[in-house]
Amino acid sequence: MIWAEQPPGDWDTSGVTDHALRYFDDYLPGASYDCGSVSVSEAEIISFAIQFDPQPFHVDPEAAARGPFGGLIASGWHTAALVMRQIVDHYLSAEASLGSPGLDEMRWPEPVRPGDTLRVRVTAVEARRSLSKPDRGILRTLIEAVNQDGRTVMRATATNFLRVRPDPDS
Amino acid sequence: MIWAEQPPGDWDTSGVTDHALRYFDDYLPGASYDCGSVSVSEAEIISFAIQFDPQPFHVDPEAAARGPFGGLIASGWHTAALVMRQIVDHYLSAEASLGSPGLDEMRWPEPVRPGDTLRVRVTAVEARRSLSKPDRGILRTLIEAVNQDGRTVMRATATNFLRVRPDPDS
Repeated sequence: MIWAEQPPGDWDTSGVTDHALRYFDDYLPGASYDCGSVSVSEAEIISFAIQFDPQPFHVDPEAAARGPFGGLIASGWHTAALVMRQIVDHYLSAEASLGSPGLDEMRWPEPVRPGDTLRVRVTAVEARRSLSKPDRGILRTLIEAVNQDGRTVMRATATNFLRVRPDPDS
Repeated sequence: MIWAEQPPGDWDTSGVTDHALRYFDDYLPGASYDCGSVSVSEAEIISFAIQFDPQPFHVDPEAAARGPFGGLIASGWHTAALVMRQIVDHYLSAEASLGSPGLDEMRWPEPVRPGDTLRVRVTAVEARRSLSKPDRGILRTLIEAVNQDGRTVMRATATNFLRVRPDPDS
């Protein structure tokens, strides 16, 4: 499924597992792709944060209730990891992916709380062939995740390297 | 310990657990803080990636050996999570931290491989009081992680909200 711009509530979940994205050439700037949704539990939030981000409002429900967010919230890195899984499953071609040099303007506008369900959408914003490495292209992608209330919980612009379609004559 | 600019190989690890950072007022632009080091094993790389970033070069050593990096590498999100743990333990005051709205210019210049040891250093680059919320300041921090060969494996500029020191007269 490919959409034009639509409000998150209208995202269609049919056919999200096959966007026919195989090589760099298949990623079309302007096209948006639904990457499905993922839910997160209190136990998962605490488990991730104990290991990687043990701030009180990520690991201790009682301290979190008295804290700046009025309750437990997920580490932003946990949110990013959950979002990444949806992108790997629904957008990044395993055959073509050559890794990422980084991303820009990562934002967590609203906290993720226990029981939230995040819908992930990506939009290809720029695609150009590499000048130095002719086997690949450079793709820039706007990543957005919204919760069940339609509020954006994460946004970022990622860069990925992807193999171009092999030349059948070579 | 607070340093002026030094090459990573000269980072001093003494006293990293107490930088005397308690409130926003204690974070001094220009000051760098050692956040210690962390090692990562092949099993940890695979375990994280199976859950969050199951691309072949993160989860399958044989496929990775034939892939673009010539071997297994850690998910960039795993690297970020490992780095975050060091920052929570050595830089972000649990008493003052009010969360983060995001970060900019996240880069993974070199891959992280099994057995690598990452040294984390942060530099406070900008600190200003919030105009809208007088209880807090806005801190911008350059994050750098280098491997045992002195090569930078992650870099980003994070924004954090931190409580200002309470007024003793209030």
